[in-house]
Amino acid sequence: MKKQVKNAINPTRAEDYPEWYQEVIRHSDLAERSPTRGCMVIKPWGYAIWENIKQVLDNMFKETGVKNAYFPLFIPLSFLEKEAEHVEGFAKECAVVTHHRLEKGPDDGLVPAGRLNEPLIVRPTSETIIGDSFSRWVSSYRDLPVLINQWANVVRWEMRTRLFLRTSEFLWQEGHTAHATRDEAIVRTKMMLDIYEKLAEEYLAIPVIKGRKTASERFPGAVDTMCIEAMMQDRKALQAGTSHFLGRNFAKASNIKFQSAEEKEEYAWTTSWGVSTRLIGGLIMTHSDDDGLILPPRIASSHVVLLPVIRKLKDRPMVMEFTESLAKELKEKFYGLRRLEVEIDDRDIGGARGWDWIKKGIPLRVEIGPRDIAENSVFVGRRDQKHNNKTSLERNQFVAEITTILNEIQKNLFERAILFKKENTIKIDNTGGFKEFFTPENREKPEIHGGFALSHWCGSDECESRIKEDLSVTIRCIPFDMENEKRECIYCGRPSTNRVVFARAY
Amino acid sequence: MKKQVKNAINPTRAEDYPEWYQEVIRHSDLAERSPTRGCMVIKPWGYAIWENIKQVLDNMFKETGVKNAYFPLFIPLSFLEKEAEHVEGFAKECAVVTHHRLEKGPDDGLVPAGRLNEPLIVRPTSETIIGDSFSRWVSSYRDLPVLINQWANVVRWEMRTRLFLRTSEFLWQEGHTAHATRDEAIVRTKMMLDIYEKLAEEYLAIPVIKGRKTASERFPGAVDTMCIEAMMQDRKALQAGTSHFLGRNFAKASNIKFQSAEEKEEYAWTTSWGVSTRLIGGLIMTHSDDDGLILPPRIASSHVVLLPVIRKLKDRPMVMEFTESLAKELKEKFYGLRRLEVEIDDRDIGGARGWDWIKKGIPLRVEIGPRDIAENSVFVGRRDQKHNNKTSLERNQFVAEITTILNEIQKNLFERAILFKKENTIKIDNTGGFKEFFTPENREKPEIHGGFALSHWCGSDECESRIKEDLSVTIRCIPFDMENEKRECIYCGRPSTNRVVFARAY
Repeated sequence: MKKQVKNAINPTRAEDYPEWYQEVIRHSDLAERSPTRGCMVIKPWGYAIWENIKQVLDNMFKETGVKNAYFPLFIPLSFLEKEAEHVEGFAKECAVVTHHRLEKGPDDGLVPAGRLNEPLIVRPTSETIIGDSFSRWVSSYRDLPVLINQWANVVRWEMRTRLFLRTSEFLWQEGHTAHATRDEAIVRTKMMLDIYEKLAEEYLAIPVIKGRKTASERFPGAVDTMCIEAMMQDRKALQAGTSHFLGRNFAKASNIKFQSAEEKEEYAWTTSWGVSTRLIGGLIMTHSDDDGLILPPRIASSHVVLLPVIRKLKDRPMVMEFTESLAKELKEKFYGLRRLEVEIDDRDIGGARGWDWIKKGIPLRVEIGPRDIAENSVFVGRRDQKHNNKTSLERNQFVAEITTILNEIQKNLFERAILFKKENTIKIDNTGGFKEFFTPENREKPEIHGGFALSHWCGSDECESRIKEDLSVTIRCIPFDMENEKRECIYCGRPSTNRVVFARAY
Repeated sequence: MKKQVKNAINPTRAEDYPEWYQEVIRHSDLAERSPTRGCMVIKPWGYAIWENIKQVLDNMFKETGVKNAYFPLFIPLSFLEKEAEHVEGFAKECAVVTHHRLEKGPDDGLVPAGRLNEPLIVRPTSETIIGDSFSRWVSSYRDLPVLINQWANVVRWEMRTRLFLRTSEFLWQEGHTAHATRDEAIVRTKMMLDIYEKLAEEYLAIPVIKGRKTASERFPGAVDTMCIEAMMQDRKALQAGTSHFLGRNFAKASNIKFQSAEEKEEYAWTTSWGVSTRLIGGLIMTHSDDDGLILPPRIASSHVVLLPVIRKLKDRPMVMEFTESLAKELKEKFYGLRRLEVEIDDRDIGGARGWDWIKKGIPLRVEIGPRDIAENSVFVGRRDQKHNNKTSLERNQFVAEITTILNEIQKNLFERAILFKKENTIKIDNTGGFKEFFTPENREKPEIHGGFALSHWCGSDECESRIKEDLSVTIRCIPFDMENEKRECIYCGRPSTNRVVFARAY
């Protein structure tokens, strides 16, 4: 039997979710694999999303007093080793530079030469190298707090990679701060998590759960790791951002000391926090459908494409003039921090043109033909609605209302995502139901499990690791906003005071 | 004998220019050396300059249709080897990744493990890896031109480094384009050079000479390298930006082919062009004086610092209120693309405070004390004028005129630099004078030579390399705007039709 409904992306989400994800990226031209193992090429349509994320975050960071700086790509091995848990956490995925030139080898090809005395690690994260600077910058309590952010590439060698979600090199920001008191550092850790929540929910339209990681999921060397967790359309969890309270661990490792107001020498309290191009993977998996990418307007690579419809050659000048004048007017309008971005696509390729833009996820498609022009109107399609559900709007009304329409789309996508997350997040209090939720017997697609289970956990490493082993399910976070209630652990029955979020994860 | 005049920077330019340069950077807090050999830490005051340069350039690029993208940090060795001259040019300065993890070594320390089958080169430039993407992106003339830019870090291993001017890792942008015709590629090469000239002259206030490199100074693999060259205050030349016409060399190496409108298969014509954080070194050495950094307002980290003068504690609330209200009003004003950036420094450290800001090169210093407030005025010092040459201005007049004052400073710095360059650029037509110009016998400081010599060159590699050997002087460029005249080569006496720029260089 043939499928009745045709979709632009093959396979659909239901048919093969991982493959659907790759196809959405390919058809939307966001990124591609590179010949360098594990590294991706971020193409212009994808990089524009990252630029928008950067602008939004950078402004929010700066409003809280954070300043940007830049630190070396390479970290001497001895620096990474300063914090024992830290190096342990990253040793298995380090790109190591051992030579500093090439020379002719025995068979005339080039081979590495000029061996370094000490290997250099391509930064997987920069606590140790930034800590070294902080140790020079800080000597008195008057030098604190130090509030620094870096936009950079980092490398964590991955054997199995996925565009945006898991690549050996990725782009991110890493914030690093040093404070005179523990409380101030904890306030900063939470403040930055709140900024990530705001980015995710208000810009990316991705609803998130805020909470803290269990000890086993903490950043290597951290005292406390806070995170935002999102639900993808296959109901798996994606860690979308983390903010770490590092206590004095890294200050001790890097010797970040200051003289207090009471003239006592003390170690500083530090934090670090980051989000990465992984967010783009989360964006794709939250909103896109079986016709391809869907971009929330506030973070979209571009807002609107104008599609002149020219059936007769003689109409061309008139249609193009109308189109270009509309584009010019739209481009002068602001939407959020930036001006409206407008594309014109006058390729003569028939229906494929409209589908190209649907697959690229642009929020608005505007068709402009002689009939529309005669009526001084435009024919508008919204990416959050069915592809053939288009509306004729008077030209000037469209110009006047475009930002309102974009806001509606933004709101719509967010509400849709909230609903999906709500429908697939369930409080479960019996062990049988818990197991069934994650390993349903009668489900066609076993890789699509139930979603988020809010269940009680006794707090033991043992239960956590048994659940992970038995069900491939991890504790995504201990949410901040769960009410305190006395129950039993879902796995061992021992007393528990808190529900946590259990899920399969990316 | 003691020096009569005291300066904030010790030594002065005349006393020890290279050391003066380091001290200017140290006192202005632009950057510092890192424990990673050859790499620098760009501190917030320095990074802000780079952010401003990025914003200006990025806008200019995008206006010409260029889009940003991101390509892998690592280039497989076999890719770099695809263009013979290219790999030859970079082989001596490559950071090579050979392993992808760390494991416990014999003496319990960590050692590199997981040897890669093929070494990876940390990109010194990205022609070969970007060319690989272009070969996939281009199949028809309709896919051309491809206009791509990348903001990235690159690594060229340096044995002797200098902050900003020569570091093993630096930040830059690299543009890469592919075209259907030779002419179009050459037009693009020149267009980007014009953008670099505009950045240098209109924003950095650095006058430059535009021209092309001789064959020996070309980018490895290029057909033609165009450049902008600037004169530093020690009269040495600094290459401030390059734009390369690559012919079809890299298209052939990377297999970038397209089907033409006539249905013939052809190789594309490519270009590449870049500027780097080196520009910040040029900025420092063009404008700064013996009191430290001087920043042109259009690119300055910040525009104005407000310095509340509080002698009696009871005055503090009134002075701070006046200061903060002024700051608020100033911050709402635009200067160029961005809002005015305003600092408030209320540290109680006496005269050192004003000097700190002089050394940091901020364009305007504004003192605000009870007497000024009583007269509703402020006391303004300009960094392009003597430090004690301050003017009282009515508060609202200052607010109204601040952007005009900043423009005056910008113009002033540029004119000063133009004059300096003019005074130290001389047409020389006799060999004795040429030698004397570069190796003056009676000069106290032999490292400060004459400047730029505009002299004739026969075009032979031989003369070029003899001059380089004898005088450590290179041909910086063959300027575009030199009149065609028939004379003799300054070194061999053979016929020559063009003057070129000879200088010592960074």
